Amino acid sequence: MEFKPGALLAQINKPEDLRQLNPKQLKQVSTELRDFIVDLVSVKGGHFGASLGVVELTVALHYVFNTPTDQLVWDVGHQAYGHKILTGRRDIFHTNRVYKGISGFPKRSESEYDTFGVGHSSTSISAALGMAVASREKGDKRQHIAVIGDGAMTAGLAYEGLNHAGAEDTNLLVVLNDNCMSIDPNVGALKEYLTDIATSHTYNKVKDEVWELLGKVSKFGPNAQRVVQKVENAVKSALLKQSNLFESLNFRYFGPVDGHDVDHLVQVMEDLKDIPGPKILHAITVKGKGYGPAEAGSPTKWHAPGLFNKETGEIVKSVKKGPQAPKYQDVFGHTIIELAEQNEKIMGVTPAMPSGCSLKFMMEAMPDRAYDVGIAEQHAVTFSAGLATQGMIPFCNIYSSFMQRAYDQVVHDVALQKLNVVFCLDRAGIAGADGPTHHGAFDIAYMRCIPNLIISAPMNESELRNLMYTATLEEEGSFVIRYPRGQGVMPEWKTPFEKIKVGTGRKVKRGTDLAILTIGHIGNYALDAIELLSADGVDAALYDMRFVKPLDAELLTEVFENFERVITVEDGCIMGGMGSAVLEWMVDHGYSSKVTRLGIPDEFIEHGTQDELYAECNYDAESIRKSALELMGEKILNEL
Amino acid sequence: MEFKPGALLAQINKPEDLRQLNPKQLKQVSTELRDFIVDLVSVKGGHFGASLGVVELTVALHYVFNTPTDQLVWDVGHQAYGHKILTGRRDIFHTNRVYKGISGFPKRSESEYDTFGVGHSSTSISAALGMAVASREKGDKRQHIAVIGDGAMTAGLAYEGLNHAGAEDTNLLVVLNDNCMSIDPNVGALKEYLTDIATSHTYNKVKDEVWELLGKVSKFGPNAQRVVQKVENAVKSALLKQSNLFESLNFRYFGPVDGHDVDHLVQVMEDLKDIPGPKILHAITVKGKGYGPAEAGSPTKWHAPGLFNKETGEIVKSVKKGPQAPKYQDVFGHTIIELAEQNEKIMGVTPAMPSGCSLKFMMEAMPDRAYDVGIAEQHAVTFSAGLATQGMIPFCNIYSSFMQRAYDQVVHDVALQKLNVVFCLDRAGIAGADGPTHHGAFDIAYMRCIPNLIISAPMNESELRNLMYTATLEEEGSFVIRYPRGQGVMPEWKTPFEKIKVGTGRKVKRGTDLAILTIGHIGNYALDAIELLSADGVDAALYDMRFVKPLDAELLTEVFENFERVITVEDGCIMGGMGSAVLEWMVDHGYSSKVTRLGIPDEFIEHGTQDELYAECNYDAESIRKSALELMGEKILNEL
Repeated sequence: MEFKPGALLAQINKPEDLRQLNPKQLKQVSTELRDFIVDLVSVKGGHFGASLGVVELTVALHYVFNTPTDQLVWDVGHQAYGHKILTGRRDIFHTNRVYKGISGFPKRSESEYDTFGVGHSSTSISAALGMAVASREKGDKRQHIAVIGDGAMTAGLAYEGLNHAGAEDTNLLVVLNDNCMSIDPNVGALKEYLTDIATSHTYNKVKDEVWELLGKVSKFGPNAQRVVQKVENAVKSALLKQSNLFESLNFRYFGPVDGHDVDHLVQVMEDLKDIPGPKILHAITVKGKGYGPAEAGSPTKWHAPGLFNKETGEIVKSVKKGPQAPKYQDVFGHTIIELAEQNEKIMGVTPAMPSGCSLKFMMEAMPDRAYDVGIAEQHAVTFSAGLATQGMIPFCNIYSSFMQRAYDQVVHDVALQKLNVVFCLDRAGIAGADGPTHHGAFDIAYMRCIPNLIISAPMNESELRNLMYTATLEEEGSFVIRYPRGQGVMPEWKTPFEKIKVGTGRKVKRGTDLAILTIGHIGNYALDAIELLSADGVDAALYDMRFVKPLDAELLTEVFENFERVITVEDGCIMGGMGSAVLEWMVDHGYSSKVTRLGIPDEFIEHGTQDELYAECNYDAESIRKSALELMGEKILNEL
Repeated sequence: MEFKPGALLAQINKPEDLRQLNPKQLKQVSTELRDFIVDLVSVKGGHFGASLGVVELTVALHYVFNTPTDQLVWDVGHQAYGHKILTGRRDIFHTNRVYKGISGFPKRSESEYDTFGVGHSSTSISAALGMAVASREKGDKRQHIAVIGDGAMTAGLAYEGLNHAGAEDTNLLVVLNDNCMSIDPNVGALKEYLTDIATSHTYNKVKDEVWELLGKVSKFGPNAQRVVQKVENAVKSALLKQSNLFESLNFRYFGPVDGHDVDHLVQVMEDLKDIPGPKILHAITVKGKGYGPAEAGSPTKWHAPGLFNKETGEIVKSVKKGPQAPKYQDVFGHTIIELAEQNEKIMGVTPAMPSGCSLKFMMEAMPDRAYDVGIAEQHAVTFSAGLATQGMIPFCNIYSSFMQRAYDQVVHDVALQKLNVVFCLDRAGIAGADGPTHHGAFDIAYMRCIPNLIISAPMNESELRNLMYTATLEEEGSFVIRYPRGQGVMPEWKTPFEKIKVGTGRKVKRGTDLAILTIGHIGNYALDAIELLSADGVDAALYDMRFVKPLDAELLTEVFENFERVITVEDGCIMGGMGSAVLEWMVDHGYSSKVTRLGIPDEFIEHGTQDELYAECNYDAESIRKSALELMGEKILNEL
């Protein structure tokens, strides 16, 4: 299938081409850019709503500013499809998010127009400020622009950036792309404030009040009437300029403006170019703008809808044959409700991922016990710690790679105080098409060094349920449960709860030649490998460790007493991971088996499907088999 | 020496006793509390300025609120000395920050009045909100109060907490203790804003403008005059209530009030108790209030001045005999200037620790090239990443335990993009009297799993200088240099710069019986141990690894080819640390020596002097010796 850009878009191979156009043509460019995105995403998949929402902003920014000399930082790259298409990647855009194709996010190594890699949110202000300060230091004349969503603006990092930027004399322009959404609807006081200034409630209220009072003055004649108008202007200026939240932080505030009026955007940006100092342009946009079904439907659904029929707006559901195992996400989402129904201490917390992690079910069923706190991982953890001090048992569900944002809170606020918070690390291991920013590669390594933590991972749905149940029984200590994105292995997943003894694994299969030790879902791949090995004449045992911390000393004793050859497999970084924990135990206890550790190597892994990347990282079933054969090599040779 | 409290203070064994007093006695209680703190800290040391600044707040809070039923969270526990003295710890307060004594920070395990452990800043709003939501859920009637400094308010976590709290219907009261300081003077736009509203510039400006205009109306007679007053009130209400920064986030704002007027504070707090919803009380305080020399002198100096003569205000300097080695902090602070003078790309960044890490020297010498960004670790790292995208080489100096706050930024913004940021991790390893919240225990473990990082630690001043120099030469990749709090070992520290080949260690001493592998300053303790061992008849070799990543394969090959017995020593957590990296290498390369790993065990270590805690953790010289003898045990027996 060919993707044919419109006539104008076809001429734009770089922003300079765009800048050759007459301003009157920009509406048409916007339309063509939007159509191109709809054409492509409907067939190829990817992030949708966010990119459609910023089509006019994208066109205006590249038209007004002299990119790449002027530096444009897109916050959370979901928005950047239009940017990529206008900056030389139109004809390869169909490889977006595909293995070995271009990244779904801006990426420095991909284009000089991608000034900063932005997979996680809320980094843009800090990064652009760094660029602006460096330019100032070097005497470069450049403009620096950060485009940030209202959702991303709830994160602490964005505020830290504002606080510093407001005190630095740079030309930084922050474009606030306000669509009232993260992936899910935005939450928190800031959202209400932005809606308030967008609809001018506060200003109108005060204006009305003053007007009413001043109305009484007007009876004193036309002279008084003029005075009244001046007063009104003073009030307006005070309200909109002196006391606006952003003005409080020393940003000059402009807006709100219609983020879909490309002509007006161009005018405003031209004006802003010449205004020195930090400034914010508040643009109101609609997620999914210009594509009827997305505008009319749920923005969350249309954030990354998968494939769809662009004519009807019907989302293509791939129907697999036979009974399907559920996603781990949904097992979490339904199980927490079951547990919470039995135990009134249980609560749920997610930082802006209620749909992604499926806490939305609990938020609907028990709205006072489940909280979406916005893009605010640090707060999510410390808020959970606060809940736990009162005897609550919060399940704090955070994607593994986002938990990196709340690391200190796990150490300082939870583990150090032995608070009973249950961390569910979703998207642990290879995350797939989102790529290196989103792979949950490091959590075992960065968590297992923290004292007082229990760290576990289920091999299947039933184990996830039982670990969740067990975590609510522990009187003291903080509990980590990690699991990957996607489906498990048990169509009949709703098994009765059973307590799992903390720090115990299980022998899944006996064997004589070598032992394979796995943690979590990847154990199923090892099981497949063992079948392959069986055909090779190798009899491998499989141990599902279940806990990285504490380790199962009895199980490990059995392993190292009986096996000279051991393979560890984890869907996580090799360096410092579960395999490393096993080595520590082995050497501490005086054993010296040969151990091959499989997992994510010491490099950032690009995007692709999970299975493509497991293979690349050498821990899909076939790779495990090969490692086993290599490890057996000597023995097999000896036996011949 | 006995510490005698004043007559009223002597009767207060718990806040209930305080609440029995007549409100008129509170001034006297405040005076006595202040005197008691001065008496104690002058002789025993500890945090000073912050606690003196909140004496009246402390008295008023415990007088008005029904602690511990009402829950009081102190942000960064520096402020909490008065709180501790009023809550049953008066007579043991002289053990503050002493090994086995009470903690310098609030601590849940120490007292029911310490609702939350607070060593790192900016956690209080999130934690108190968690408590408030739990109380609401349980139907408890309690008040929840967070006391937070203006410095702590610059951190993203505080803002995330405000954003959520503003949208929750709880009775949360945030007391903003505004003294214009972190440990160093506070920075950023928020500080300017707070000063502005404290001195009412904005309000006054608008008021004047409106007043002038309305003055013209008044000539229309007394009726118009009344209208004018009503208009003024409307404007005032709009400015102070509707458009205040905190009001933007849906907090009701009260203040500013004099934080040293205990009577007024009591009145205001009594009123606030009955006002539902999130609210903020802005109290202006003076760090060091009530102690002349501290009020008159530098607040930074008086943050934790050490011992001093309370009559004269003279700070007692302990003069050691002979030439002294400098602090690693000062070696960093002076060396970065030397490097920056030769290389215009070098810049300096610190999140609110210019005095602690000694970047202050560069901030004075090169103000446009060194930045204190406030308590904002995440921003410090991403801002540094932004600088590095423009070819700058920022040295981003962050205490090891505070770097936990910027973990995702290291992964996502720096390492993933291979940006040349040099992270100097100060206070790595045991930090001393600040205790478990401040020990830099985990950095080797949490950093070494991140691809693209170079991780190093100097054994002495000269190595620190050379590592810093080397880090500026590397074309690609991000560089970590960790070093401990305190003195090095080289009085003549200012050695000429030499490049160190990345990933190489050095053999410090040959030996035949066993090899000791160390990383960083703790190597000097191993050197002492080797002397002791020599007297025991054991000939130990010493290798200074210098790099945890990449490891020195040549050195490790030499070690494992030649030694059956190896000890690794690090001032950091054993689990996942340098020793673990060595085990990984050993097993991957088919060696199987006996390895004893020394370092911080898998538990949180309390406070004490560094030497007390090295001994407790079994890696002071004597403990290293014992471990070596144990490891040699069998061999020694065999030889007998």
